[in-house]
Amino acid sequence: MQILHSNDENFKEKLDQLINRSNVDMAGVMPVVNEIIKSIRARGDAALKEQIAQFDGWEVNDNLAISQDEMKTAYENINNELKDALNLAYTRIKNYHEKQLEKTWLSFENNGVVLGQKITPVDRAGLYIPGGKAAYPSSLLMNAVPALVAGVEQIVVCTPAIGGKVNELLLATMHLLGIKQAYKIGGASAVATMAYGTQSIKKVDVITGPGNIYVATAKKLVFGDVNIDMIAGPSEIGIIADESANAKHIAVDLLSQAEHDELASSFLLTTSKEFAVAVSDEIDAILPSLQREKIARASIENKSAIIIANDIDECVEIMNALSVEHLELACDNPYEYLGKIKHAGAIFLGHYTPEAMGDYLAGPNHTLPTGASARFFSPLGVMNFIKRTSIISMNKQAINELGDACMALARAEGLGAHELSVKLRKSMD
Amino acid sequence: MQILHSNDENFKEKLDQLINRSNVDMAGVMPVVNEIIKSIRARGDAALKEQIAQFDGWEVNDNLAISQDEMKTAYENINNELKDALNLAYTRIKNYHEKQLEKTWLSFENNGVVLGQKITPVDRAGLYIPGGKAAYPSSLLMNAVPALVAGVEQIVVCTPAIGGKVNELLLATMHLLGIKQAYKIGGASAVATMAYGTQSIKKVDVITGPGNIYVATAKKLVFGDVNIDMIAGPSEIGIIADESANAKHIAVDLLSQAEHDELASSFLLTTSKEFAVAVSDEIDAILPSLQREKIARASIENKSAIIIANDIDECVEIMNALSVEHLELACDNPYEYLGKIKHAGAIFLGHYTPEAMGDYLAGPNHTLPTGASARFFSPLGVMNFIKRTSIISMNKQAINELGDACMALARAEGLGAHELSVKLRKSMD
Repeated sequence: MQILHSNDENFKEKLDQLINRSNVDMAGVMPVVNEIIKSIRARGDAALKEQIAQFDGWEVNDNLAISQDEMKTAYENINNELKDALNLAYTRIKNYHEKQLEKTWLSFENNGVVLGQKITPVDRAGLYIPGGKAAYPSSLLMNAVPALVAGVEQIVVCTPAIGGKVNELLLATMHLLGIKQAYKIGGASAVATMAYGTQSIKKVDVITGPGNIYVATAKKLVFGDVNIDMIAGPSEIGIIADESANAKHIAVDLLSQAEHDELASSFLLTTSKEFAVAVSDEIDAILPSLQREKIARASIENKSAIIIANDIDECVEIMNALSVEHLELACDNPYEYLGKIKHAGAIFLGHYTPEAMGDYLAGPNHTLPTGASARFFSPLGVMNFIKRTSIISMNKQAINELGDACMALARAEGLGAHELSVKLRKSMD
Repeated sequence: MQILHSNDENFKEKLDQLINRSNVDMAGVMPVVNEIIKSIRARGDAALKEQIAQFDGWEVNDNLAISQDEMKTAYENINNELKDALNLAYTRIKNYHEKQLEKTWLSFENNGVVLGQKITPVDRAGLYIPGGKAAYPSSLLMNAVPALVAGVEQIVVCTPAIGGKVNELLLATMHLLGIKQAYKIGGASAVATMAYGTQSIKKVDVITGPGNIYVATAKKLVFGDVNIDMIAGPSEIGIIADESANAKHIAVDLLSQAEHDELASSFLLTTSKEFAVAVSDEIDAILPSLQREKIARASIENKSAIIIANDIDECVEIMNALSVEHLELACDNPYEYLGKIKHAGAIFLGHYTPEAMGDYLAGPNHTLPTGASARFFSPLGVMNFIKRTSIISMNKQAINELGDACMALARAEGLGAHELSVKLRKSMD
């Protein structure tokens, strides 16, 4: 694993490269995805079935809906250990997200003005869950629970049935969540179907969920016609470790991102050269034992770095510049640095909080902003499934008190009917 | 103005047309906007200056920054009535948005788990404010105040200088707000500059603000590389009026949207045919007196409708389907229907709350979702300028209690390093 030092002559350029790591290049797939969306908007179910045959590799003879029975059978077939683990994860994720629920509020002024903000769930949410090898029940939990907590009445799940078959663990998790509407549709076709609807599937208001470059591009293209959560790229971890950290643990945490994707990035920031070398050695030692060695090795060798800084404050500064998805503060006194962290998807504190706990069942969402977009995007949450409406109420006294100023502004902007609408009320007896 | 009845045979089709009123068609301008963005990414300031000469009609000889002096002089030159009105608006908008501020929270479990959510402002926000005839100081207030309240340290304003000249009222409002960084850049060029930066202007994290189809398209294209507020189209109002409403007032409120834009839509929903006709007559009577008659008339004739329903509940149902930007409940008992309104940008209650009060100084933001996107978008607010970061902390007891379930899930998903990262902590002594 490459080891850089913040005092290196070319460090600034190297860091800039790491900061600009995302660059999800959609240009290449844009024409294909545009065509998929256009066909589904124009021809609905017929186009959808053609696309499924072409991309997911099976002929749709019957309908695309997944039955409640399939879900129930799958749930009954999983072992008790896994059943308990899924239920524990569900409960903990639910508890956390319930804390995010916003309430409608009103505020009152003495002059008769009432202002407020009303919270309403969206009517219909669409969750995209990838299939095949990356079919993760945890993704379904993390997308469905915030929608359920938000109070969304209609939740739709789309997931590809590679060769006609949906991943059994996903089916089991659908049963646990009480999903009523699920369809065997993959990739950009699923996004287009949920965004615009077909003869047999109704359009949704919000689309969330992970996916490959085709899914990400489709989400970007339909944004505005529906809302989306974020545009996510490969996973990342950044660890700030002081000398109290365990080199082997840190090595495994770095590898736990690397094993996701050849394009994933892992960064270690530390003040100790010895520790840097120790972690690098541990990584080399552990890599051959991993089931996903090849993927992890590519990520570690091509997309990752250990950076030695002069002190922890400099580590924090560099980490803010990197704005990573997962940030571990593997220090004895992590709370001391918490306030200085400006940009990160999720922060894991101390020596007993490996990032994997957050992936599955700590409670917070594992859908987090990648590629330095933690500078402006937030974790998936209840707020992705609600919307706010402003409330304004005035009475005679209020409009008499505030009306003149309003009319002056309307006049200044040349909007006569605006001015008149206030004037008429002011003169009401 | 066309009058429909919900019992009409073809009402469903007519309503569907009104619901699908937005259809902002970006395809036509996409190539031009793409080219603008590509040039600015490739050649920075040089491309920007060419574009300003071409689109805003002036030669950039000096730099693009607006000086503090220009802002101060403009502020000193406006009359006291307007100065007071701007200050009142500023204070009221600030007071409202301060109520939206979210706090960082932590929660504690007996087993040693600490979870939380940290709130941080974005580093740098870019506000686009249109120029020319639609240069509204209220737009600047409504975009800048939530950013200021959020605690954004660097606020950048871009506005076109048509023929080299920036609107004086905008300059004055910049002074009032204490804007430090403002540039004379218009349209898609401004969005591209703020999204990607040039040699002289640093990139931002979030771009907000209204604009024409070029600005909207540019915002959509840069979304993901920065965050944006929403993609907005022409303005709209929907009014539910019972027989207690004043026909002339309602007519003027409908016209106050219509005068914005030929593509704006105004809808009146009522149970009384007499009232419908009375409002329509009032509109015809008032139209010729409006400075912006031509625009308002086009909007009223081509994009608007009065709908007669069988009862107020049906009005509410139709209004939810229309999901309008501004919704007036011009009834004696508006709070009775407030809970039933599911989708709207802002709701104005009763007979003394013309929509114009919300445009300028009631307090809530006037940047609201249009084209039925109130189904999933929210008013602009403090939340557009902050982001959340999850906090997770465990200790020995916590990971011992929760680790097995986490490992079971990691195993089920085939992620070995994830499992190992928990296992190593569990065996720590």
